[in-house]
Amino acid sequence: MPRYKILIEYDGRPYAGWQKQANAPSVQQTIEEAIFRFSGEKAVLQGAGRTDTGVHALGQVGHFDLPGIWRGDRIRDAMNAQLRPAPIAIISADAVPDAFDARRSATRRHYLYRIVDRRAPAALDIDRVWDVRRRLDIEAMRAGAALLIGHHDFTTFRSADCQARSPMKTLDALVISRRGDEVLFEVSARSFLHNQVRSMVGTLKKVGEGKWPPEAVGAVLEARDRKACGPVAPPGGLYLVRVDYPAAPGSEPEQTVDDLAEDEA
Amino acid sequence: MPRYKILIEYDGRPYAGWQKQANAPSVQQTIEEAIFRFSGEKAVLQGAGRTDTGVHALGQVGHFDLPGIWRGDRIRDAMNAQLRPAPIAIISADAVPDAFDARRSATRRHYLYRIVDRRAPAALDIDRVWDVRRRLDIEAMRAGAALLIGHHDFTTFRSADCQARSPMKTLDALVISRRGDEVLFEVSARSFLHNQVRSMVGTLKKVGEGKWPPEAVGAVLEARDRKACGPVAPPGGLYLVRVDYPAAPGSEPEQTVDDLAEDEA
Repeated sequence: MPRYKILIEYDGRPYAGWQKQANAPSVQQTIEEAIFRFSGEKAVLQGAGRTDTGVHALGQVGHFDLPGIWRGDRIRDAMNAQLRPAPIAIISADAVPDAFDARRSATRRHYLYRIVDRRAPAALDIDRVWDVRRRLDIEAMRAGAALLIGHHDFTTFRSADCQARSPMKTLDALVISRRGDEVLFEVSARSFLHNQVRSMVGTLKKVGEGKWPPEAVGAVLEARDRKACGPVAPPGGLYLVRVDYPAAPGSEPEQTVDDLAEDEA
Repeated sequence: MPRYKILIEYDGRPYAGWQKQANAPSVQQTIEEAIFRFSGEKAVLQGAGRTDTGVHALGQVGHFDLPGIWRGDRIRDAMNAQLRPAPIAIISADAVPDAFDARRSATRRHYLYRIVDRRAPAALDIDRVWDVRRRLDIEAMRAGAALLIGHHDFTTFRSADCQARSPMKTLDALVISRRGDEVLFEVSARSFLHNQVRSMVGTLKKVGEGKWPPEAVGAVLEARDRKACGPVAPPGGLYLVRVDYPAAPGSEPEQTVDDLAEDEA
């Protein structure tokens, strides 16, 4: 049965996260229903990242199987027509080999976290940014962030609900920049533990406020203890920006068990 | 009585525009009520631009008088506290000389219009951009826009409701750029007629779609006829970005009657 890969943008505010659940609207279910309305098929949609309630996506990736051959652009347009007025858009849809798996084939996930650190709250970006209301020290946060890069036990930054088998993850990049009154955190890894990005951002904000020295981030990481973590940053500032895949199926790099687990940032 | 200048950001969606009216919520009235709640004073707020229903602001400017001496940052914080949860933020508040008038002293107004021209609708920016769903030709629109720069009779681009005394305006800049799937129109003038920016963007979109040649923009302008205009672009894509004032009171440049009229973009 032909398999399709879709690139998805969504506003996380009306949804209890990506994943389907009994009594709350989810992104996954909303899209599956749109597929059913245009095709009559009960497809199962798999997503690359299991985003939490209120988390947004600029480039979530999903896959599903559908009998019959469809042109990708037709599927995209049909899904978008059926999704209205939900704040979910299918940016592209393409036929892919059966071996493609939105979650398992992913080689890297890229998240963005946005903070506005001016005194006035954000009016145009309510629940799209974290309003911290005081100027953050970028250099101090960068020094703290450097201690998180690499292969570590990220137990400190893992929610109690996390279902990953191992707390070991490899953090590839955590780039902090300023754009006017906005502070951007660009975070990349093969996969993340549940709440990992928001937990790291909440900890770095403590450093940016001058409440913790940058070195504290190293101690917090080494504690391997959830209680050592800073406050978890609110979901509205988080965006799943992009998911990378190997250029050709079969060319995936070696995977370690811990980095293979599903993404729950 | 001391006068204060405030810099204002707002989401235009819940408001029937800037201006106070009998039976609909307005930005002006919402802010006046916030001033009353912290000061007990019925101040009258004057704004630099009379933005329409659904139009946003990143840098609207207003002024009002208040008895007693207040620190600007205290006024800003008190207003923001009273404005919650309205999507309006006071970015700054400063004491200014009595001669300062948010509307009359303005030397230039800068608007931004955002179009998303990909096939998929915008999910994260519903009512924040105009979804045109087909790729626009930037070069053709630039050629058309060039014909609008300068001092002209802009009757074609003026709404029937426009209250300006003269249709003569001087358009200083209309810069069109692309940022991924977004087309940005940055428009600057001392002041604008009612719906002028949105009427110009709607006309240029016709050119960008290839339905009108760039030269048509000149003919449309010269027609001095509302019926010659392209469709008026929807309000959600428009942002009042910045208002300029002379560095010191009294240093205002010469004003012509037509350019002095209030701004109603």
